[in-house]
Amino acid sequence: MYRFSDDYSEGAHPRILAALAEHNLESNPGYGLDRHSARAADLIRKEAADPSAEIHFLAGGTQANSAVIASALRPYQAVIAASTGHINVHETGAAEASGHKVLTAESADGKLNPSMIRDILSSHTDEHMVQPKMVYISDSTETGTIYTREELAALYHFCGQNGLYLFLDGARLGAALASPENDLTIADVAALTDIFYIGGTKNGALLGEALVIINDELKPGFRFLMKQRGAMLAKGWILGIQFEELFQDGLYYRLAAQARESAETIQRALEKLGYEFAYPPQTNQLFPIVPDPLAARLEAEFGCHPDRHLADNRTSIRIVTSWASTEAGIRSLLRVMSE
Amino acid sequence: MYRFSDDYSEGAHPRILAALAEHNLESNPGYGLDRHSARAADLIRKEAADPSAEIHFLAGGTQANSAVIASALRPYQAVIAASTGHINVHETGAAEASGHKVLTAESADGKLNPSMIRDILSSHTDEHMVQPKMVYISDSTETGTIYTREELAALYHFCGQNGLYLFLDGARLGAALASPENDLTIADVAALTDIFYIGGTKNGALLGEALVIINDELKPGFRFLMKQRGAMLAKGWILGIQFEELFQDGLYYRLAAQARESAETIQRALEKLGYEFAYPPQTNQLFPIVPDPLAARLEAEFGCHPDRHLADNRTSIRIVTSWASTEAGIRSLLRVMSE
Amino acid sequence: MYRFSDDYSEGAHPRILAALAEHNLESNPGYGLDRHSARAADLIRKEAADPSAEIHFLAGGTQANSAVIASALRPYQAVIAASTGHINVHETGAAEASGHKVLTAESADGKLNPSMIRDILSSHTDEHMVQPKMVYISDSTETGTIYTREELAALYHFCGQNGLYLFLDGARLGAALASPENDLTIADVAALTDIFYIGGTKNGALLGEALVIINDELKPGFRFLMKQRGAMLAKGWILGIQFEELFQDGLYYRLAAQARESAETIQRALEKLGYEFAYPPQTNQLFPIVPDPLAARLEAEFGCHPDRHLADNRTSIRIVTSWASTEAGIRSLLRVMSE
Amino acid sequence: MYRFSDDYSEGAHPRILAALAEHNLESNPGYGLDRHSARAADLIRKEAADPSAEIHFLAGGTQANSAVIASALRPYQAVIAASTGHINVHETGAAEASGHKVLTAESADGKLNPSMIRDILSSHTDEHMVQPKMVYISDSTETGTIYTREELAALYHFCGQNGLYLFLDGARLGAALASPENDLTIADVAALTDIFYIGGTKNGALLGEALVIINDELKPGFRFLMKQRGAMLAKGWILGIQFEELFQDGLYYRLAAQARESAETIQRALEKLGYEFAYPPQTNQLFPIVPDPLAARLEAEFGCHPDRHLADNRTSIRIVTSWASTEAGIRSLLRVMSE
Repeated sequence: MYRFSDDYSEGAHPRILAALAEHNLESNPGYGLDRHSARAADLIRKEAADPSAEIHFLAGGTQANSAVIASALRPYQAVIAASTGHINVHETGAAEASGHKVLTAESADGKLNPSMIRDILSSHTDEHMVQPKMVYISDSTETGTIYTREELAALYHFCGQNGLYLFLDGARLGAALASPENDLTIADVAALTDIFYIGGTKNGALLGEALVIINDELKPGFRFLMKQRGAMLAKGWILGIQFEELFQDGLYYRLAAQARESAETIQRALEKLGYEFAYPPQTNQLFPIVPDPLAARLEAEFGCHPDRHLADNRTSIRIVTSWASTEAGIRSLLRVMSE
Repeated sequence: MYRFSDDYSEGAHPRILAALAEHNLESNPGYGLDRHSARAADLIRKEAADPSAEIHFLAGGTQANSAVIASALRPYQAVIAASTGHINVHETGAAEASGHKVLTAESADGKLNPSMIRDILSSHTDEHMVQPKMVYISDSTETGTIYTREELAALYHFCGQNGLYLFLDGARLGAALASPENDLTIADVAALTDIFYIGGTKNGALLGEALVIINDELKPGFRFLMKQRGAMLAKGWILGIQFEELFQDGLYYRLAAQARESAETIQRALEKLGYEFAYPPQTNQLFPIVPDPLAARLEAEFGCHPDRHLADNRTSIRIVTSWASTEAGIRSLLRVMSE
Repeated sequence: MYRFSDDYSEGAHPRILAALAEHNLESNPGYGLDRHSARAADLIRKEAADPSAEIHFLAGGTQANSAVIASALRPYQAVIAASTGHINVHETGAAEASGHKVLTAESADGKLNPSMIRDILSSHTDEHMVQPKMVYISDSTETGTIYTREELAALYHFCGQNGLYLFLDGARLGAALASPENDLTIADVAALTDIFYIGGTKNGALLGEALVIINDELKPGFRFLMKQRGAMLAKGWILGIQFEELFQDGLYYRLAAQARESAETIQRALEKLGYEFAYPPQTNQLFPIVPDPLAARLEAEFGCHPDRHLADNRTSIRIVTSWASTEAGIRSLLRVMSE
Repeated sequence: MYRFSDDYSEGAHPRILAALAEHNLESNPGYGLDRHSARAADLIRKEAADPSAEIHFLAGGTQANSAVIASALRPYQAVIAASTGHINVHETGAAEASGHKVLTAESADGKLNPSMIRDILSSHTDEHMVQPKMVYISDSTETGTIYTREELAALYHFCGQNGLYLFLDGARLGAALASPENDLTIADVAALTDIFYIGGTKNGALLGEALVIINDELKPGFRFLMKQRGAMLAKGWILGIQFEELFQDGLYYRLAAQARESAETIQRALEKLGYEFAYPPQTNQLFPIVPDPLAARLEAEFGCHPDRHLADNRTSIRIVTSWASTEAGIRSLLRVMSE
């Protein structure tokens, strides 16, 4: 089966497996205090152009999101997200489980803007309501869209003026950076957020997200919090080695570019075939609108998740490519979609 | 200042103060294990027509709501509420602070129905999302509306079929029962919910809510939970004495009726004056729509909270009456509103 | 039944009930924003000799303790207490329920000293262990003992040097201040702690504890936290009125003195009868050691709780007096104990 | 540097790396719903001789411990552990962070017995105290000791009679099973506990613990809880493949035996040299008592953690072997210790 359900359906890029094997019998101190993690952190600080950024490696996205929220907020503070945001929908209430309400704004494309946040602030005015303190965005978003430099700068500026932390979930940051419409670098993201992470799981790693803490207020005690939440891996170098490999010569960018190329091939073919998209097709996630029977077939044969059921017996479905997508798979998918 | 901001702006009905004074120097065991609490519980069980109902007395509504939610739900389970629900808006995230997401439905009149709940259930289908397990409603609602017997029965039936607990916040149950359009009794509420409470604070008590647990599944361990959450009063008989007084000869109903009479006087006068209401005026809470300058004046002079800002420079404001509302106060309010 | 089980077995001092009745029909804003609460806070700030102290009124001790802990600590931080401390034993895990470990030191008399705390600090050295951040003491303690000025100063100094907050649970502060061996004032307590509270429930109030926040770091957001935890009373003036009455002319001190006088009568009689005490008898709590059968009888007839079972079929029991203890009760108790 | 600080200082056994590489480009469904996880679960069910056991794979021990505790207990319930227990000391308060108190018994060898638990039960009698509901043990323990079949049976029997769940932390279960004094099998452990896990991280895996739920009461909703706590790996098959490899032909046992052989070599040599041990040397963890200067040297040169400082300027230190310990390393360690 060729699977287009996700960008984490295969293992790691072969170079990463090779690096893990190469260092396998080294004796390393545990819990991320090893030289690989240290070097990977250095590489990422360079990428972020912030020598004082604090870097932590965590196993997965839900873990990273809920650890950041739990660390940054006081008990009565809340995080603002798009209603489609991963923390609002797909983390089984992890934010709430650490005590914090997620305040949501409806958004057509999965993105937030200052005006949406202003509305929420203006209705949260006293101690009978939670106090908004953090804004959560994802880039690329859950609907495959991306933020421009200008949009991110506007958000960051607004957050700063209103005493809000801006947190960017970069589980699919690679995909965002590889978008033809992207004008951000990791250094830009570092300059325009308080805290963000760079996803490895969805871009070539076996597992791992690299958290980058920019704002000094968010740095104290994070290792305590990771340990408490089961987010500090005993063999921490497993994560360090992978991010070393991803960032020492640009592999991270190349893998993301490859995923986008596959998506672009599919996107152009679908456009030619006359398909419309539920959200602007900008990254490795595409949401074409198809007749219900085709949606069912694509789910059965390629694992494509239905997104939303629409009028006239149509459904938007999600097609996701990765560095591991094959030409044969793409041909097979397009064959079915052009029948 | 005549205050129409709330139904808890005065102390207790004089009979309740007298009862507290009468028993003041009795020596009673603490923590609700006294004879007054026992007798009050018996009176309430009779009212509920359920001899096996478990009764607990708590100090306030937020305490009652969050204790019930924390007790009933497993860590990954969620509670469904109207977006205007008290637990969603005005408890500073108490539900989330005990770990549970509040899933909300938009509702024009503050009430839920099975179809709204069905929509939420149908989008919460696997372990990546919270599991809805409880439905929270309030009667009367935060917008002053009430449930009919038929509506409550439909909700209870739907919840039973879908493995959901139905929890009724009765902080203003007195007001609901006193509505001219009400066809429910406390026994009906007991028969058509899994758990509910009878508010004292907003109907003549100094403080106190009487929680009534009907469903056996929700009974174990509740006293442990109360104690842990600081919701078990050392001098528990203070609550017991008040509910004894409220329910031994119908005082509870008479006080609520008196509050509604005052509201009815105001409502009729406002209708005559041509005011429209943002929500159906059914209880002791009225939401007339007034020009902005009048809204500001009513807030300044009578403490009336603005509800929502509407088109054409109008605002819906909240007028609340209680057993302690005075004729002079009502005249004074109406004078201003008829200028 | 004459009850010596507790100092909260009766209602309020008659003057307090009278004050509640006097202001009963006043219209007051809710949630502690009324003039009585403001005046009571002023009186307490004067008592504490700290014009910038922040004062909050809460309903009970468990509520106060867990709100303070939840507010002061980050998720991975812990509070240090004597193993007999109320938060460790008798709050159904309220501290842990808000996420925080209680680290305990064994203590013969229920008191902590710097050396005990130093031992705990020295074994909590990295992020695999919780981080101690607050020291919790009670004065008078759960075993009826008190801190001297010198002892409290030593603790406060040590805490300051080690980045720890010192929190004093004053549920029975009145009893401590009324001890013949006491050399502290409320102003001393304010000068030698970061946060403390003055208990009303156990010294003449119907209910209520007055929290005094001295350290500026602990002030932000406390009202949010109170509301979230169900610790913000709708009719907040009920608490304000009581503390006004207790502190406007020294009633608080007189009631505590009266409780101690009763205890002193009993203590001297027991000493004459040759009883030994499990802990130094300093306040309104006495722990004489009695033969097991007498322990059982005292529990049955006077509600005295057994403390610990000792060798030779003896038990230490707890005798507690209050402002409401009667001469007849004391005579009756002593008659049984001298048989 | 030869490191004897831990049994997780190297990567995975080469066969495990090879298996990961072999299946690397397979397309698998995420979140543990793949065929490798299914087969590994089958192998473990066979090992446990319980066809209805529910198996989940988690990344690490702290994650497993706190997820089990959070899932099994109601908010006011507590877990009993030896004071040396991992959950009490080395998880940064993870149990408390999920709301649950850890009640501890002092234990000379890191093990619990029914009498210790009975003492705790007898002092937790009403709703003012937490309710003990689970007993946590580890095998092998944090001090390198093991449970016999008889001891485990006695605990399980006692727990059953007292309504307690018995939870066995098997992060080092391999080491326990490989002890010359062990008389348990995994099937015995399954028959004599309610829930336990089989540690991979400390016995040859890159990462991973296999949780085995025996008691039906503990099964519902565990996948929701894993997801919420960030303990559900996106590429779940990474864990499945490793446990497949460990259990398809006994590799798990052989790796543990190899670790014990290395420990035995060291143990015998140390005994000959006249060293005493702080705890009975039964597994791959040895705690010889050495003069302070030697302790410092062993920490510097071999990473050996000091355990406790003892009288006469002596310290017990921890030596841990693993499947990856080398003869050269052992010789080097013994050379230093025989100087």
